[in-house]
Amino acid sequence: MIVTVTLNTALDVTYETPPVSWDGVNRVAAVHRRAGGKGVNVARVLAALGEEVLVTGLAGGATGRAVEQDLRAAGLTHALVPVAGESRTTLVVAEPGGHTLFNEPGPRVGADEFADFLRTYEALLREARAVVLSGSLPQGLPATTYATLAAFARERGVPAIVDADGEPLRHAPGGRPAVVKPNAEELARAVRLDEPEEGAEALREQGAGAVVVSLGAAGVLAVTGEGTYRARMPYAVEGNPTGAGDALVAGLALGLVSPCAWPELLRRAAALGAAAVAAPVAGAFDAGVYEAVHPLIEIV
Amino acid sequence: MIVTVTLNTALDVTYETPPVSWDGVNRVAAVHRRAGGKGVNVARVLAALGEEVLVTGLAGGATGRAVEQDLRAAGLTHALVPVAGESRTTLVVAEPGGHTLFNEPGPRVGADEFADFLRTYEALLREARAVVLSGSLPQGLPATTYATLAAFARERGVPAIVDADGEPLRHAPGGRPAVVKPNAEELARAVRLDEPEEGAEALREQGAGAVVVSLGAAGVLAVTGEGTYRARMPYAVEGNPTGAGDALVAGLALGLVSPCAWPELLRRAAALGAAAVAAPVAGAFDAGVYEAVHPLIEIV
Repeated sequence: MIVTVTLNTALDVTYETPPVSWDGVNRVAAVHRRAGGKGVNVARVLAALGEEVLVTGLAGGATGRAVEQDLRAAGLTHALVPVAGESRTTLVVAEPGGHTLFNEPGPRVGADEFADFLRTYEALLREARAVVLSGSLPQGLPATTYATLAAFARERGVPAIVDADGEPLRHAPGGRPAVVKPNAEELARAVRLDEPEEGAEALREQGAGAVVVSLGAAGVLAVTGEGTYRARMPYAVEGNPTGAGDALVAGLALGLVSPCAWPELLRRAAALGAAAVAAPVAGAFDAGVYEAVHPLIEIV
Repeated sequence: MIVTVTLNTALDVTYETPPVSWDGVNRVAAVHRRAGGKGVNVARVLAALGEEVLVTGLAGGATGRAVEQDLRAAGLTHALVPVAGESRTTLVVAEPGGHTLFNEPGPRVGADEFADFLRTYEALLREARAVVLSGSLPQGLPATTYATLAAFARERGVPAIVDADGEPLRHAPGGRPAVVKPNAEELARAVRLDEPEEGAEALREQGAGAVVVSLGAAGVLAVTGEGTYRARMPYAVEGNPTGAGDALVAGLALGLVSPCAWPELLRRAAALGAAAVAAPVAGAFDAGVYEAVHPLIEIV
């Protein structure tokens, strides 16, 4: 079983509207609601690939219950730990020719609530073959949280992947995770080095087993203990890049549970990322694009 | 007990934001969530006045459960009937100097779900001293719904107030409700007569016991079986007119359960409407404004 951790679960809501009357009254033509957060997206991809997966993290209020309900509807097993605050909603107002996003602040999490989560996490580690730690942290949790969770996993022999930004990313290597997966921009911000390979080396020196950097259409860079590899994409896939990083992480997690050499692991993960761009929503990927692009990716 | 019926319950959400970046990404500074729908607002006012009140209607999905949770938190007894669809959210994006509203379409209600509601309604009528039928109808319910519910109440000796717009208002007199409460614009649209007194007479001829027309700052007009009265406001109260009509309806409902002459009933209802303008949210009223304005309202 692969466990994905989403400490800041979200309900991703999309309002389809005619052209919006700002400062006016608008009728929403259609509403879409979907459980979100990066770890949830990773779990969706893994489940679609037939992998046994479990979603854990924190969820609160009516929004948290809506998240749980959508996970059940999607057939995803979850062990979300309740918090008193209201889980966040991310709202996209999609009008012809434009998208406006509103991100709610989400709950403030107390130490006692994180302690409850740790007990659940500890129990799940007994069954887990790999752990994915993804996305933003809710207010109230320290920036060292992913380092802490990765260290707990490591102590129990479970490899962890961290996909984070900002301070949580900067601290992540301290927990000695198997893989850290920033994109080029996140990496540059965290280590203050513009060259991705140098940045990746820096995170490895600080404790990360391997660092995989998504470079968008330019492919993927992996700096590992076995060498440095680049996945070069044969062509740019058109579509929605939201969720591409989560599909890439799902591919990396597969590599942790069914060990294979880095070149093959990286080719599959990069193909999943590209196939996710071709799918309209985060957490989905286009199987046809996956089949088409996979054999054409060059690993150098 | 006064029963308020809200067939299209809502979760009223307000996003406080810095100036919005349209077509960009926005961080929401604060989120407020509150059970809404006109009948819920009427119930809040009645409860604040010490009246025994019960909220019924339809609620579905996680949004419906959030509505129920907020009603419980507010100490309002409810008997909401579940529907399969998701109750609507109304979203106000409040940035400095502007408000943009988004109204979700809400659930589509089936005949079987309305039949479930009718059984609950029937049982509640045994205890009810008055029924308030307020607000929009969800998709799937016929425009004659309020006429039907008013007729059921009338058969059981329970007076009904209808506060509706459009076709449901046009059909309402067919159920012979004790009171119909449109505002001037709603009345003009329903009867295609510009003069409120003529419009009110027309609804009475069609079966309404009395017609009370809110005229905003110009006061209130009541065309009743005992005569025609106007409440003239001593001054315009500044504030938020949303919910003023609901407070007026609460005042009218009080008149149905503790009968008093129309002039006094109208004065109290008009004072509640003005006091609601002074309160920041629908369903609340400013007790100081109520005390101040009540004795100064002229009934002519």
